[in-house]
Amino acid sequence: MATDMEIVCVGNELLIGKVVNTNASWLGKRATNTGIAITRITICADNVEEMAAVFREVFARKPKFVVSTGGLGPTFDDKTLQGIAEALHRKLAVNEDALRMVKDKYTEYAKTRNIKEGEMTAPRLKMATLPEGTSPLPNPVGTAPGVRADVDGTVLFVLPGVPREMEAIFEESVTPLLRKASGNVAFYEKSIFADDIMESVLAPLIDTVMKDNPSVYIKSHPKGREHKPHMELHLSTSGKPSEKPEKSLENASAQLATLIVKSGGKVYADEN
Amino acid sequence: MATDMEIVCVGNELLIGKVVNTNASWLGKRATNTGIAITRITICADNVEEMAAVFREVFARKPKFVVSTGGLGPTFDDKTLQGIAEALHRKLAVNEDALRMVKDKYTEYAKTRNIKEGEMTAPRLKMATLPEGTSPLPNPVGTAPGVRADVDGTVLFVLPGVPREMEAIFEESVTPLLRKASGNVAFYEKSIFADDIMESVLAPLIDTVMKDNPSVYIKSHPKGREHKPHMELHLSTSGKPSEKPEKSLENASAQLATLIVKSGGKVYADEN
Repeated sequence: MATDMEIVCVGNELLIGKVVNTNASWLGKRATNTGIAITRITICADNVEEMAAVFREVFARKPKFVVSTGGLGPTFDDKTLQGIAEALHRKLAVNEDALRMVKDKYTEYAKTRNIKEGEMTAPRLKMATLPEGTSPLPNPVGTAPGVRADVDGTVLFVLPGVPREMEAIFEESVTPLLRKASGNVAFYEKSIFADDIMESVLAPLIDTVMKDNPSVYIKSHPKGREHKPHMELHLSTSGKPSEKPEKSLENASAQLATLIVKSGGKVYADEN
Repeated sequence: MATDMEIVCVGNELLIGKVVNTNASWLGKRATNTGIAITRITICADNVEEMAAVFREVFARKPKFVVSTGGLGPTFDDKTLQGIAEALHRKLAVNEDALRMVKDKYTEYAKTRNIKEGEMTAPRLKMATLPEGTSPLPNPVGTAPGVRADVDGTVLFVLPGVPREMEAIFEESVTPLLRKASGNVAFYEKSIFADDIMESVLAPLIDTVMKDNPSVYIKSHPKGREHKPHMELHLSTSGKPSEKPEKSLENASAQLATLIVKSGGKVYADEN
């Protein structure tokens, strides 16, 4: 099994559908492209008990990596670190490295704005208050540091919910570790598109191609209606470059295209 | 506590970030608007054991409602009903009502397309094969029926992943039950926007307004950067019309706007 990762997204705005969870899809795509398999995504409320339950369950499944998003800011409802502390039975305390990071940010902001340099109010101190035994990750584009926690072989990265901050910390502090863990395995994908073939007719053709190409996974995505079908066939595989995974994809998609045409369908290389 | 609901979204395409999970946000918004509280969203792979584990965990938490999306079609990787059967220790069997629904669809399709009327191939029979003791929900715009399962006081609705099919079955077969369960409670929300106030300065103002208006929940969504801030303040509440929830929202947003202006921020009624 590929090195695995779970994602936890914290935020009432995701549960009530106010915000579409593009953080999860961005992380899923980035991790997949570095050869990591996402096994589960959990979305939970800004509620300490709920979060603690979710993180306890995630740790019990022992994934190699966990990335969480949301709940690191200065307001009362930014509770992710409380939830993690509760799940790990650890205390929260001001972390000196995190404090320096946050102070430096406000010193920088003070140059352009009318605030007292480094003034550490309670909401600002909150962003430097971490579960004991964890360490801060620099936030290149925002104030609240990310957090890394090592828990019984699982590495947890706690990232903010603001997409540009989450992405910046991920690229700087998480991606290099994922690449190393996946050992040069990469993800390859290719889609072909078919018209005039029903999904129920397509099903046995996909079975045949997957049996003949065991390293390739094929999923059909219906985009029209069953009786007026337009279908995306998404083929994917993972492997080291030496295993020539692109070649397996090409073979499988060529075979599938041939079978579809034989069954009366039309095949296109691009969305049409 | 409001009547609660969990969402389970099945599909590798969601884990690898190929598809953004708009089904979850659509369901979250619709359920919230009918007065139901979404407590958790779980996304898992097209894998029977994974799904069975997820559904077992969901049932153990005993939510009033569960809605799942994805994995009901005719292809080999549409495995949601297998996962649910496994979780419930029930057998899968052809359901006569479901069979009639699927047959009727192909009879209809046969009028416009060159297929044998009602021909029930294995992939088509698959869409009529349900866990024992469950019942099909008509699909007004597609082929695969939805499924309803009643499990120890929890009502599970199993819906397809294609958004228009999922939405059509939800509106026809799920919404009326949610409305009845929530007892005329509705969700109210309002946003105001603020410039030139940092989230760390805003935090204690939000605390004050929430203490003075205990029925109103306020969440800040940073949209600029901490040192050049643009903020959405989202206020929400639930209640019966007789409790005048809109009035509480108005009071809270007026108080918050006043406090922000006093702290040197600018307030706007609309996104700018």
